Amino acid sequence: MSDCIFCKIINGEIPSTSVFQDEQTYAFRDIAPAAPTHILIVPKQHIDSVNAMTEADEQVIGHLFNVARQIAAQEGLSEPGYRLIINTNANAGQTVFHIHLHLLGGRQLKAMG
Amino acid sequence: MSDCIFCKIINGEIPSTSVFQDEQTYAFRDIAPAAPTHILIVPKQHIDSVNAMTEADEQVIGHLFNVARQIAAQEGLSEPGYRLIINTNANAGQTVFHIHLHLLGGRQLKAMG
Repeated sequence: MSDCIFCKIINGEIPSTSVFQDEQTYAFRDIAPAAPTHILIVPKQHIDSVNAMTEADEQVIGHLFNVARQIAAQEGLSEPGYRLIINTNANAGQTVFHIHLHLLGGRQLKAMG
Repeated sequence: MSDCIFCKIINGEIPSTSVFQDEQTYAFRDIAPAAPTHILIVPKQHIDSVNAMTEADEQVIGHLFNVARQIAAQEGLSEPGYRLIINTNANAGQTVFHIHLHLLGGRQLKAMG
């Protein structure tokens, strides 16, 4: 998607602080962190939101979580714990319409919303 | 897992208010809802947490999100929006060690944690 900010981050047109990438995913630090560790893990494939996913996307969405597990280990979060979130549309605060998994940790997290 | 409360809910030993099930997943209303709609979507396969998942579990974890998408539609949340969360360990408030996806919606959600 030529006008998608996360597609531009993935292809390097917009700079980001990368923490991980593989064939299917790219992960980078959120520029407005909501916790001491706040990383966004995105599929390189453009999918607008969970509303737009299909059965064919199940593996890549699950892969985001396997990547999150590895990043949490790198960040020292595996044992203390971490929260993984995907927001959809306005009531959840989705602002970029390219699916992204938030990885939050580094302190005791509060209510889920 | 014979001592897992969510395995007991899945097999009917403990009652729950079911909203969806298929071969891989079971979904039911949280008994202590954190939002007007609060549903838990769990894999029938016992996996302790994201820390314990492997590459072989990617499809089933992604399937939880495809099921969440369908339940959100049933609940009238697709357009207003919804938040999907998996918590791991104490800092995130994980209390049951059987992976569960929280589906939250029905009002403007607040901070992610």
